[in-house]
Amino acid sequence: MRRSTGCRRLSRREQVFWGWGESGAGPRLPEHAPAFLHETLGVSGDVVNRPVALEDVHVRSPALPDGLRAGLEAVVGAANVRDDDEIRVLRAAGKSYLDLLDQRAGACENAPDAVVSPGSHDEVLGVLRACMQEGVAVVPFGGGTSVVGGLAPLRGAHGSLVSLDLGRMDGVISLDERSRSARIQPGMRLPECERVLNARGYTLGHFPQSFEWATVGGCVATRSSGQSSTGHGRIERNVLAVRCATPVGDLATLDSPGSAAGPRLQELMVGSEGAFGVITEATLRIRPVASERRYEGWFFRSFGEGWEALRRIAQDGLAPTVARLSDEAETRMSLALSGGHSVTARAGGAVLRARGYAEGSVMILGWEGHEAVVRHRPAAARRLKAAGGMAVGRSPGAAWLASRYAGPHLRDDLLDRGVMVETLEIATNWSNLGALYRAVREALAPAHVLCHVSHLYPSGASLYFTALAAQDREDAHGQWRRLKAAASEAIVGAGGTISHHHAVGRDHARYLEAEVGPLGLDVLRAVKERVDPAGIMNPGKLLPG
Amino acid sequence: MRRSTGCRRLSRREQVFWGWGESGAGPRLPEHAPAFLHETLGVSGDVVNRPVALEDVHVRSPALPDGLRAGLEAVVGAANVRDDDEIRVLRAAGKSYLDLLDQRAGACENAPDAVVSPGSHDEVLGVLRACMQEGVAVVPFGGGTSVVGGLAPLRGAHGSLVSLDLGRMDGVISLDERSRSARIQPGMRLPECERVLNARGYTLGHFPQSFEWATVGGCVATRSSGQSSTGHGRIERNVLAVRCATPVGDLATLDSPGSAAGPRLQELMVGSEGAFGVITEATLRIRPVASERRYEGWFFRSFGEGWEALRRIAQDGLAPTVARLSDEAETRMSLALSGGHSVTARAGGAVLRARGYAEGSVMILGWEGHEAVVRHRPAAARRLKAAGGMAVGRSPGAAWLASRYAGPHLRDDLLDRGVMVETLEIATNWSNLGALYRAVREALAPAHVLCHVSHLYPSGASLYFTALAAQDREDAHGQWRRLKAAASEAIVGAGGTISHHHAVGRDHARYLEAEVGPLGLDVLRAVKERVDPAGIMNPGKLLPG
Repeated sequence: MRRSTGCRRLSRREQVFWGWGESGAGPRLPEHAPAFLHETLGVSGDVVNRPVALEDVHVRSPALPDGLRAGLEAVVGAANVRDDDEIRVLRAAGKSYLDLLDQRAGACENAPDAVVSPGSHDEVLGVLRACMQEGVAVVPFGGGTSVVGGLAPLRGAHGSLVSLDLGRMDGVISLDERSRSARIQPGMRLPECERVLNARGYTLGHFPQSFEWATVGGCVATRSSGQSSTGHGRIERNVLAVRCATPVGDLATLDSPGSAAGPRLQELMVGSEGAFGVITEATLRIRPVASERRYEGWFFRSFGEGWEALRRIAQDGLAPTVARLSDEAETRMSLALSGGHSVTARAGGAVLRARGYAEGSVMILGWEGHEAVVRHRPAAARRLKAAGGMAVGRSPGAAWLASRYAGPHLRDDLLDRGVMVETLEIATNWSNLGALYRAVREALAPAHVLCHVSHLYPSGASLYFTALAAQDREDAHGQWRRLKAAASEAIVGAGGTISHHHAVGRDHARYLEAEVGPLGLDVLRAVKERVDPAGIMNPGKLLPG
Repeated sequence: MRRSTGCRRLSRREQVFWGWGESGAGPRLPEHAPAFLHETLGVSGDVVNRPVALEDVHVRSPALPDGLRAGLEAVVGAANVRDDDEIRVLRAAGKSYLDLLDQRAGACENAPDAVVSPGSHDEVLGVLRACMQEGVAVVPFGGGTSVVGGLAPLRGAHGSLVSLDLGRMDGVISLDERSRSARIQPGMRLPECERVLNARGYTLGHFPQSFEWATVGGCVATRSSGQSSTGHGRIERNVLAVRCATPVGDLATLDSPGSAAGPRLQELMVGSEGAFGVITEATLRIRPVASERRYEGWFFRSFGEGWEALRRIAQDGLAPTVARLSDEAETRMSLALSGGHSVTARAGGAVLRARGYAEGSVMILGWEGHEAVVRHRPAAARRLKAAGGMAVGRSPGAAWLASRYAGPHLRDDLLDRGVMVETLEIATNWSNLGALYRAVREALAPAHVLCHVSHLYPSGASLYFTALAAQDREDAHGQWRRLKAAASEAIVGAGGTISHHHAVGRDHARYLEAEVGPLGLDVLRAVKERVDPAGIMNPGKLLPG
């Protein structure tokens, strides 16, 4: 395959095309993992599979319609229209399980025909207009971290595909300290955004597990929720205004703290996943960096006892910034993987056993800010104790904080060892939480299933499932599809939302109708037809193809 | 005109057709008002104008297409299709200034041709289907409290009009205490809803000035905000799910506490003002009735100094349940109208003068719930004092609480005395608040202008203007139109939202484009075309005709 030339070197850090982050840079599976995998999943625990080298990736020759390349170069400049294989492979997929299966195997035949990097709102508009005229599909690309196929290079009814890379639009446009808001470009990665805001004493307070690579625009477009969202709210609670470019023009919302001027159009663009247009600017709430922080661990005798305790503090207005409760299986795995260093061990295994918590559930709570630490924590602690909880000190919290972004890195190690791994994140109201938990666990039963609660609301909570199994090397795609279908049907059947924070993408599109109904889907289609009449925006994503 | 027969008596309490509430039941102007009106507006202060008697109202004969009446009776039952003049006049308008001018004069020529009262979601669907088939316009009617022409009997392109009265759908369907939510029918009035919930220990916490008559469905359909919304959040923050009937079928949203499953369709129906369909059920968050309450008054030397203090507590997470700050003019009027019993007088006029607060701004703060009273109030008080505030004890808060729903009652007295009165409620971010305040006050300058801040957000606040002037008896409609146009242009020109909580209705429809842009308006039209292809739903409201 063709390599990028020196003068076209990548201008910002890139993830490896076959997995998470930069090669060799992330955390690895702990030393006890092979034994655990052997015992639990029946795999050997050895490395049995490696991603192909970039040279061995299969990619077709780029095929843009005649004239479009010149048109795109006129909009963004020649240096910002690339079609070398390296960049095309890097923009060919996100990081879903199916994406990684293909990328690791070098199956990038459908990589975008070109990667276009606009530098401004007007350039985005120009690119979309040019692609609409030529009937070329467009996949907006922010951090590249979608785990639901949101970046799959699907062409829909079109013959060619452009990846619209927002990496050049990566700054804070302005900061309004009086209004506690910042106007931010979509391609800015969260760590860089935090660095800029922290230097002024502020934070977005948005920390998804994809934090290291996710972009601000991607979070808004996928209706993201982060590890601190129990305290700071989901991204949509923090979006004050958006500016968007669509194939037919601008769509911008007013930065007003509250309005009764009709339906809230902003809520159509937040979560639109590139299927309606491109978010070119977001005005987000900022808040002062917390002056105090306290992370701690608790144990409960069962998952159900733990979530009842969480319900109580959420409904009493005492929810912490971060709340996370593992079920018994996830708690056990945490013990097994860390050997003597587990949170359970730190809490004192003998004490836990003596008090009946040995087969229980571990809870991590994080309190950030003076009010939370000083006023809410003691009041919440009284309720947690009354609800059966046992406080086990700060070290479990510190351990969790240290590994909060490890998950996607470890997935690469699991794939190396022939393990299928999928995560599902759903939500429902408190009354339905037990039924949803049981239904999904049962649907995933062929796999080894772990679960935790990670986002609290007064009316309900999220459930985050991890399913692990020995990979079926003959039919890895089919194995995943069957498991995903069974789980998804269980979720919609039991009244849960199909996604609490990963978004719809390609993988959930067929289940959206169960959630919004046929007329709801029709309304979304009507909106898409109005702003994207040629159907070029991210085909096959959000709405079923 | 024809009167209703005995067997068709009104089954629930009705407001008078020409004003607010029941005749003689509400608060009246205080004794010092005539002198104040004379001095400030140049009117005599005497009653110079009375509404006509029901017998003298002009109303055309009802004109439904042949067969529709039978069709409607088949859906809802004969007793629930009425076309006597009394009910038609009662459903001919809301309570906007223009509505009242016409209703007081007996100008009800365009009253609906029939009033149809469905008893269930399916009956609403049936009524809408029948009206769509016959091309008859439909105005959904909840509490009848719109002050922006949301209930004006406009027929659009259609020859006839049905008022769809939701009064029979007025119950709490179910209460989910574990999830802290209640499923409520749209026609339930807020006081009745509070009675039912209070009996179980809960409250909606939603108290608009229209509380005595507003319905749950009306609040959701108009994106309402109440006097406690600083603490409890606007209605949309409390809507967990909605079920709607549209002319082409059902639109229902999932009761999930958070979701990343695409754009939030619910936000299209909240604030849809009957132009897309009818909300037939809303699942709303409920919260325990506050165990403690403390209402109190503060004085600041200026309006600007006061809102800076409010900004500080809102951004520090210490906002009270209720926050209300009057500008200097509103504070002065409060003094003048109450004579020796004003909040200023209660605070000790001499003390105020001595400390430089005599020409200042009065602030009312309400703390509800143990956390708010015990934890937030003292911390907030320290900040308010540091920002120049002077605490003046509980009596101003008690006085405000006692008169919190008086405004619309007093308007009737003002109309009797030949006074034009209009209210505008807008919002913007903190950085823009001063500029918006000055621009709108200037645009309203021909009138006597009062203003207060009544809703706090971390990023901004609302401004509520009251404009009073001697009514131009020759051209009362034109006088209002000119003032409203000048104010509205100033609002959109200065970057405010055209409505913070009154909604769009007929009066703001022409300004919606300035707020959402041409493509935003197009998107709303696309949604309407999909769910209401015949354009029968509330013509001329929300979207410009």
